Amino acid sequence: MPPQRLKVACAGLGRMGKRHALHFLNRTPRAELVAASSPDDAEIQWARQHLEPFGVRLYKDYDEMIKQEGLQAVVIASVTTVHAEQAIKAIDANLHVLCEKPLSTSVEVSQSVVDAAKKKPNLKVMCGFSRRFDASYRDAHDKMDGGRIGRPSIFRSQTCDMLDPTGFFVAYAEFSGGIFVDCSIHDIDLALWFFGQDSQVKSVVASGITAVQPELRKHQDRDNAVGIVEFYGGQIAYLFASRMMAAGQDDATEIIGTEGKLQVNAQPMSNLVNIYEAGGVRREIPPHYYGRFENAFVTEANEFTACCLDDGKLPMKLTGAVQAVKIGCALQEALVTGKKIWFDEVGRRSEKALL
Amino acid sequence: MPPQRLKVACAGLGRMGKRHALHFLNRTPRAELVAASSPDDAEIQWARQHLEPFGVRLYKDYDEMIKQEGLQAVVIASVTTVHAEQAIKAIDANLHVLCEKPLSTSVEVSQSVVDAAKKKPNLKVMCGFSRRFDASYRDAHDKMDGGRIGRPSIFRSQTCDMLDPTGFFVAYAEFSGGIFVDCSIHDIDLALWFFGQDSQVKSVVASGITAVQPELRKHQDRDNAVGIVEFYGGQIAYLFASRMMAAGQDDATEIIGTEGKLQVNAQPMSNLVNIYEAGGVRREIPPHYYGRFENAFVTEANEFTACCLDDGKLPMKLTGAVQAVKIGCALQEALVTGKKIWFDEVGRRSEKALL
Amino acid sequence: MPPQRLKVACAGLGRMGKRHALHFLNRTPRAELVAASSPDDAEIQWARQHLEPFGVRLYKDYDEMIKQEGLQAVVIASVTTVHAEQAIKAIDANLHVLCEKPLSTSVEVSQSVVDAAKKKPNLKVMCGFSRRFDASYRDAHDKMDGGRIGRPSIFRSQTCDMLDPTGFFVAYAEFSGGIFVDCSIHDIDLALWFFGQDSQVKSVVASGITAVQPELRKHQDRDNAVGIVEFYGGQIAYLFASRMMAAGQDDATEIIGTEGKLQVNAQPMSNLVNIYEAGGVRREIPPHYYGRFENAFVTEANEFTACCLDDGKLPMKLTGAVQAVKIGCALQEALVTGKKIWFDEVGRRSEKALL
Amino acid sequence: MPPQRLKVACAGLGRMGKRHALHFLNRTPRAELVAASSPDDAEIQWARQHLEPFGVRLYKDYDEMIKQEGLQAVVIASVTTVHAEQAIKAIDANLHVLCEKPLSTSVEVSQSVVDAAKKKPNLKVMCGFSRRFDASYRDAHDKMDGGRIGRPSIFRSQTCDMLDPTGFFVAYAEFSGGIFVDCSIHDIDLALWFFGQDSQVKSVVASGITAVQPELRKHQDRDNAVGIVEFYGGQIAYLFASRMMAAGQDDATEIIGTEGKLQVNAQPMSNLVNIYEAGGVRREIPPHYYGRFENAFVTEANEFTACCLDDGKLPMKLTGAVQAVKIGCALQEALVTGKKIWFDEVGRRSEKALL
Repeated sequence: MPPQRLKVACAGLGRMGKRHALHFLNRTPRAELVAASSPDDAEIQWARQHLEPFGVRLYKDYDEMIKQEGLQAVVIASVTTVHAEQAIKAIDANLHVLCEKPLSTSVEVSQSVVDAAKKKPNLKVMCGFSRRFDASYRDAHDKMDGGRIGRPSIFRSQTCDMLDPTGFFVAYAEFSGGIFVDCSIHDIDLALWFFGQDSQVKSVVASGITAVQPELRKHQDRDNAVGIVEFYGGQIAYLFASRMMAAGQDDATEIIGTEGKLQVNAQPMSNLVNIYEAGGVRREIPPHYYGRFENAFVTEANEFTACCLDDGKLPMKLTGAVQAVKIGCALQEALVTGKKIWFDEVGRRSEKALL
Repeated sequence: MPPQRLKVACAGLGRMGKRHALHFLNRTPRAELVAASSPDDAEIQWARQHLEPFGVRLYKDYDEMIKQEGLQAVVIASVTTVHAEQAIKAIDANLHVLCEKPLSTSVEVSQSVVDAAKKKPNLKVMCGFSRRFDASYRDAHDKMDGGRIGRPSIFRSQTCDMLDPTGFFVAYAEFSGGIFVDCSIHDIDLALWFFGQDSQVKSVVASGITAVQPELRKHQDRDNAVGIVEFYGGQIAYLFASRMMAAGQDDATEIIGTEGKLQVNAQPMSNLVNIYEAGGVRREIPPHYYGRFENAFVTEANEFTACCLDDGKLPMKLTGAVQAVKIGCALQEALVTGKKIWFDEVGRRSEKALL
Repeated sequence: MPPQRLKVACAGLGRMGKRHALHFLNRTPRAELVAASSPDDAEIQWARQHLEPFGVRLYKDYDEMIKQEGLQAVVIASVTTVHAEQAIKAIDANLHVLCEKPLSTSVEVSQSVVDAAKKKPNLKVMCGFSRRFDASYRDAHDKMDGGRIGRPSIFRSQTCDMLDPTGFFVAYAEFSGGIFVDCSIHDIDLALWFFGQDSQVKSVVASGITAVQPELRKHQDRDNAVGIVEFYGGQIAYLFASRMMAAGQDDATEIIGTEGKLQVNAQPMSNLVNIYEAGGVRREIPPHYYGRFENAFVTEANEFTACCLDDGKLPMKLTGAVQAVKIGCALQEALVTGKKIWFDEVGRRSEKALL
Repeated sequence: MPPQRLKVACAGLGRMGKRHALHFLNRTPRAELVAASSPDDAEIQWARQHLEPFGVRLYKDYDEMIKQEGLQAVVIASVTTVHAEQAIKAIDANLHVLCEKPLSTSVEVSQSVVDAAKKKPNLKVMCGFSRRFDASYRDAHDKMDGGRIGRPSIFRSQTCDMLDPTGFFVAYAEFSGGIFVDCSIHDIDLALWFFGQDSQVKSVVASGITAVQPELRKHQDRDNAVGIVEFYGGQIAYLFASRMMAAGQDDATEIIGTEGKLQVNAQPMSNLVNIYEAGGVRREIPPHYYGRFENAFVTEANEFTACCLDDGKLPMKLTGAVQAVKIGCALQEALVTGKKIWFDEVGRRSEKALL
């Protein structure tokens, strides 16, 4: 008898939901995609063609889906606004949860997922920060852990999307939580990973512009933003997020230690091809984050599955996801108000920190 | 009812056989690994643990395995010396065949597989030149096809393995066919792909040394060799193969056209990490070809499967595999004798070609 | 009769003074080094050997030197604390001046040089921001001017020195003006160059740490610092300066526009050599800024000379040097106080800017 | 009294002659350009403007020039066909000689320069292989000498010019000696430098095509050629030369040793700028060899000057220049005849070498 496979449902079949569904269907040998849900007719239509023939049961209603007999886990890839609610319902239904980032654009709502998860310690509840599963980031983290750069001190990271001239991001900004919560959340999570999950933020400050999409201002958002995050313990992360890259997805990270520096993707590339032509030497770069992180998402699916089946330790704590949202929201507030925001050593907002 | 999956057996469970078996087991959604064979006890032992629990039936005898009820295809990853024999038996048993390169180190024996396959035009019989499935090589080929470099004229390619100080390659050389047949066969196949599958070789010449393993000479082999292959039609491929790289696998290719040049892997790398440290900036490179070509092997498994199930067209002709062996053997002969070897326009050896 | 050559004196013969003296002696065909001064015996000793034999007259006293018959220009490479005083004296003596950066660590004192220069419009008075003469920066600026990246919007730049374990920087910090005035002044000047010389700073904010040299705190300095500079007009520069690089000098700049991005030295290198060895592929990087910018200093000497002889236009305005010091000092203050500092649209400090 | 400067004349004021003249005039502090000659009116016209005002005396006749009072050295940058004759005349006139490569396209004529030089051991006679003065090649050579790659065994090098669509190279080919003598001579010289100046060639073989300029065949030349040079001692150099690069000058070299590999210019670049734009990331590369080697030519001028003034040891032996021409001519012959050419251990042509 072959070993048991984890029975997984996928909530949401938008851009990322489709990918998660296919990863669990085809590229996660120890998992079995048994259900998928979407309130959207076009998405259900897609699923009839790509999922149903392989034994995946489809639902328009999430609540119905999570009652399916034998279901063990849910991957939540629906719109951000329902992440937390769906996660809590799944926890209540005794299902393992892999939830797309962020848990919520609100710190309090994010915390409510943590609170729900705490009551069911047997469940695996993970927020999907995909970069933690990327081979290059992992290699960099291993090298740091191995002492190769001394004490990590400065962290630079950027999440820069290719310009989408359709104006999609303007509508999207209404619910995204803003550029720091939507994009930089990844960089913030990485900073916490490299500096230590329990690093305490001391201050944040940020500046931004609307270089190509001034309408973003009506949603209190920007298309380019930089921020500085100070941590107690003497470490600094500085971040850049942008929506206007010409060449493609340009996500780079540097970890600067007392004895060395690690770079991840400082020279982005689609593949190993160089083109020599009139004008010089050119390489292409991935147009979107999925081109950069596809393998990381697949690894995430497989490792989450293994943790559920083997009662293993998740590679990251759920509380970190709240901390990341908290820093992201503070940066967004600093971006809009122009103010520097301080925190005391137990994480409460304070008017002025000691220097 | 889920769509039918291709029932595949794996012959040989050595280094590459294990990988093929796992690819078909876990990473080829439309295939189902149902059987595996090896005459080697240790390999069978490995399979008991990693394959049998998932419903894979194990055989010590290849001939028994290919009789298994319902079997549709065989991937042959056994020692090179039995490739052709096993392939022909599989064809006779009406099985699709994916055979590791080379079909044989002998042109005549390789041709016998082609002859067998010709009699069963309904079967898919493919020699696994993995680089044809590599995303970077494919991108380069697409760009060439798209006219981006004009007419391809000069082809440079190298297959350079990391030094294995155990002396493994000396024993291996007895049956490998020599460095041009074992390593450069990939580069030769690529040359035929980029110059056109029906390119006719005009001459070959080669030189080699034993820089680190003089004992290779007893098997008429070398640890470093360079060769030049002229084609009718005015194209030249020049090749380098080595067994003594210090840094890792170093396989690079350039296609030089009348209006541009394409490079594949001219700057090898394991991943996207750079390490800044005393001494400068360093990046690691894959220690072995599998580190470079893992994804290509998985793509190969999936595309072969799709061709079998959908009666699709294989991405390359089996006759090309004979042509590659023919050129590889001629280079090996040129290497050992020091002579330039000429061919006439229909592919027969000739004493002297017209210039 | 050969064309006239500019008669130049060099003030200060420390690390950079020696280089300037030799550049004017040997690598500036239209100039003639006729004098050099230093109050330091060891430096004079060096000059007896390397300058005097070529007809350069030596002085212990700057004031004496600038009286030398026929002298036309002075390059000032003495300690920062006397830059302004020596520059003003030279101007008063009707000499052209090339002054090492910064004019002073004080805005007011820097301005006094500008004021003196204004009274002698026939004189060429330039502050030596060497990167303006670097071929790569110039190429990037030309490309930006040519519209290749649309409107420049975000500017990232770093000046990162190799760790000097002797503790030199601690003593040096007493007079250097701090890491933003000493190192980032170059990046600030570049930001002004790329965003437009008349860009008005709106706010600055900064954070820093002492990761390797805690004693720097006694001079109100840090060994790593990041800062954000907002400009009226909707542009942002963000900066990083460090004293603890392991691999060597690591000065990189990015100019991000609405339609593209330009990078300068994002992959630092000493030369065009790659070393493949156990552990991967390595390249060396220059240990010091002179290794990176030697040719820029030589170009600076030649272009300054040409401007003096031909009454040409200097490549940059002296007022920019004051603006750079002003921003550097504000960043340094923000670094120490933790406060965000605002400016109104005419450059005066303001308690709170309108957003 | 300033130290004496070497009085130098420049013969030939074509493309490279102009550069040599200006290097000795402006960028070689210990030399003084005192004379220049050209039979060409346009070149003399150029010199009236750029050299004469600085005290350089001009001649239409080389023989007249070398009689100039006080002259100490000649740099010969005239057409290749008169290199040897002019060099011998200069030697006879007791002048030091820096002669552009090659001494001649004929081995015998090249040897006649060596013979003349032998009679005047006090004179410095050097053939200007500029790459020997390039900082990157020197760094690579130093690293090899330091044992960093073990025993150098395989040498790959290419000299690839940008396509000149004017057809210049066709006319040029009549006197250039062919692509191996004109272009690859540099790579051959480098091979001799890295493998040891006294390396004995064992065999050469070559192939070539006319991909863009079929008219080259009337001068027995090709626009793309590859060759293999075997040395006694078990070392191999393999070479590529091309006239049809789209992107610019593409000269790369690899030295592969038993314990590592050194690359020089494997990723050509004009400067340190990367351009991110629609289509990916691009860097420019130098259009011509002077863009790549300008600094090497200047170093050459300075070191040659120092050797003459200080009676120093030249960085390379003149006999090496004959050896390089000999190998280049043999490759050219192999290219045209299609034959492999063998040499015995004392350098004489032989019908068949022992293997």
